[in-house]
Order: sequence, then structure tokens, then C-alpha cells
Amino acid sequence: MTERIYNFSAGPAVLPVPVLEEAQRNLLSLPGVGMSVMEISHRSKTFDEIIGSAERGLRELLGLPENYHVLFLQGGASLQFSMIPMNFLPEGGSADYIVTGSWGKKAVKEARREGAVNVAADMADSGYNRIPAQDELKLDPNAAYVHVTSNETIEGVEWKTDPEVGDVPLVCDASSDICSRPVDVSKYALIYAGAQKNLGPSGVTLVILRDDLLQKIPDGLDTMLDYRTHAQNDSLYNTPNTWGIY
Amino acid sequence: MTERIYNFSAGPAVLPVPVLEEAQRNLLSLPGVGMSVMEISHRSKTFDEIIGSAERGLRELLGLPENYHVLFLQGGASLQFSMIPMNFLPEGGSADYIVTGSWGKKAVKEARREGAVNVAADMADSGYNRIPAQDELKLDPNAAYVHVTSNETIEGVEWKTDPEVGDVPLVCDASSDICSRPVDVSKYALIYAGAQKNLGPSGVTLVILRDDLLQKIPDGLDTMLDYRTHAQNDSLYNTPNTWGIY
Repeated sequence: MTERIYNFSAGPAVLPVPVLEEAQRNLLSLPGVGMSVMEISHRSKTFDEIIGSAERGLRELLGLPENYHVLFLQGGASLQFSMIPMNFLPEGGSADYIVTGSWGKKAVKEARREGAVNVAADMADSGYNRIPAQDELKLDPNAAYVHVTSNETIEGVEWKTDPEVGDVPLVCDASSDICSRPVDVSKYALIYAGAQKNLGPSGVTLVILRDDLLQKIPDGLDTMLDYRTHAQNDSLYNTPNTWGIY
Repeated sequence: MTERIYNFSAGPAVLPVPVLEEAQRNLLSLPGVGMSVMEISHRSKTFDEIIGSAERGLRELLGLPENYHVLFLQGGASLQFSMIPMNFLPEGGSADYIVTGSWGKKAVKEARREGAVNVAADMADSGYNRIPAQDELKLDPNAAYVHVTSNETIEGVEWKTDPEVGDVPLVCDASSDICSRPVDVSKYALIYAGAQKNLGPSGVTLVILRDDLLQKIPDGLDTMLDYRTHAQNDSLYNTPNTWGIY
């Protein structure tokens, strides 16, 4: 075999060898099943156990409170940039975005298509080389939510302590540092992350959201873009990325 | 090894053993690369070759004319139910839907959120047990497009010859029979299919669309829901499902 290289660059990155070896061992047949995870029905008992185990593992690792849903979606953080304001930025409302780099700017761009955005801070003047202090944030106490990017990969800026947002729901793009350190999930209303940096292969998007948020979603959204669809169907409304979840 | 079972049921299905064996062989390292396809950058030369090879294979197998784009997206046919009318059902326009079963009904449901739908035929009265004859279709010559489902898996109804739609763009959900028979792609403006039935693992959605359609897309769509984003970036606007494409 070619000597293995450890990729720590942006985008998809190194996976643990024991995980790859188990996937390799079971590639033609899950133990006792006779089929690859890529060949079995996503409605089968076998896959129920796989997705249940993925959820339990995340709940344990992140110390997730009971009142949070764990969703395995598709489309990456980039589709979440749209789904979050579609679901949680109501007509006549406004959302706060704290921009600490390139990914935050992209999130703002999509949110503006859906409604009013208040940029509570944009660190462009400092060349995106630091996190804003609390007193630099122009937060709106009536905001629908506050959006932060926990780690900006391109600029290399990471939040060490969360901003104080009072009772406003805190939404976090944690694509590049999720599970890299302990976080108090109860401070967040919604955390999302593409899987490919820290969790697994690309093509799975993790969304962790507090149950009460589901009641804020307006009716009439496209089925696949409505978080309730995925919460009510345990991420199995349609065929998920079975390999990625495995 | 457990005896292999061939799954021909609805949803993800059997894959060829030589394909699985090659994936297994290369799981810890692509030949000469030192990393799994799940660990390499989607911006790398190695992945460029993988996605290029997937596209070339499909072009050859389907005999694709030059003026068609091949896109590898996420979200399944269910997200295409929304993206198609978002992109191609203009304000004040109307789209024709021919409903021959459950998947067609779902497509109509999402299209109605985006604009006016003319159900050109709905075979509910016959219990969805046959394809409508040409003279049963109430087609609108000014329709933005005509949508058909080439094979309804739940009811077991497949189109043997395409409907005559004149110059109106024909859009086809071919999720369950793509690549199972030769088709004249030049009759279609857009063909879409979840990969998991006939093409590969779940989590990849194939979209084949005629170039001129891109000019009909309105500005202001969410970036990830605009086909131009994916056409202009060769399906690499954001991280794709690298394993599924491989």
C-alpha cells in the first residue's frame, strides 16, 4: 500500500484509520447482512440501527440535551445559509449576523434574499484578524436570531467564548471545528456543520436544533427546505446519504 | 464472508461486485495517492479526474449531445421537485405535469408552491395502472415545461414512448430507470435522477440539462438552488459527495 498521507487542509480531511478499516472490511457486506450499506434500504432495520447509532454517538460526544433534534441532511453548510433564514427569519423581522470572515459573508448574502439582515459586526476593517469584543456588537434585542461562524477557515479566526445574546436564539456554523472541543450546546438554538471537516465523509450535513424552534417555522415552505420535514421523519423523509451516515 | 444478497427492491439497490471490490481495495488510499477519496480535497487534481471520469462515463453511456450539462448535486429527486419550478416556472407562466403515480403527485405539490401548474393528465381514475394516450393529454402549448415521471416505482407504470410535446421543454424524473435502457436524450430539456437506484450510492443526484435552459433562470434565486451555480462551477461550488461521485 502507498504510505498514508494525513490531510489537514481545508475541505475534506484525514479520517481515523480504524474507521476506514472497518468501512473497508464491511464494504461488500455488513456483518451478517449480505449487502453493503450502499445497497440496503434506508427503511431497513439495519439502517435504523446505523442512523440511531450515529445519533447516539453524537449525543454522547457533544453532551446534547434531550430537547435537541439531530438531523442528517444534504447540501452542505451552503444550503443551510438559505434554509436558516427561510425557516427562522419571518416577514417583518430581522436577523443579526456577526461576520468574522468569508463564510459569514456568504451566510449574509443568502439571508438577504429571504429578509432583513442586521450586520451586528463585520470585522473587515481589521482584515478579519480577530473576533469582535462584546461591546463592538450592535445586537438587536428583537432579532429573530444571531448568526455566528465559530471558526473561519480562510481567515483563521475562531470564537473562544460565545457572544452574549440574551434570549435571542444563537445559530452557529460550526463546520470546521465541531467536535474539536467541548461546547455547551445549551447556549445554541441551532448548530450546523458539513461533515467533511471533522465528522466523516462529505455529502452529509449535520444540523442540531432545539425543539422549540420548530414551532417558529412558517407554513408553505418547500418540503425539503423545511426543518420540520426532517425532524418529523428522523432524517428519512427521502433517501439520505446512507454511506456517509454509516 | 456472509453470502451476498441481491437487493432489487425500491430505494438503494444492488451494486456490481467489481465496483464494490475496487472501492474496497482503494478505501484507505487511492492508488499512488496515500489518501482515501473521502479524505482528499474536492479541489485536487485527483478529484478532478474522478468527477471528470464520472461525467465522461455517463456521457458515453447515455450518448449525451454536447449541448447538455451533467451536474452531480445533493438532496435527491425530492429537492429537484422544488428546484425545477424555482428555476423554470416564471411568474405569470404555467407548467404542465403529467401524473402517473405517487412521485408525480409529489412533484406537483412542490411546483404549486412556486407557481401555476396545469395537470395535463392525472391517471388516478384508472388507479395509476397505465400511461395516458397522447389524446388524453391536455397540454398547454405555452407551458414553461412538461414534467413526466419515466417510471413510477410504487404503481409500477413506465413510459415506453415519450409524450409529444412539440417545442415545450420536456423534464423527466428518471430516478428509477435511468441507464436501464437507451433513451434519446435530445428529446429532453432536463433529466434528473437520484443515484441510488441505478447509478451508485445514495446522496448524489444526477441532473442532465440542455444548456439553453440556463438562460431562462431568473436572478435572485438562492445560490445553492440555482442550476447556474452548479453548471458554472462544474458541480464544485461547494463540497460535493466525493465518495458517491467516485
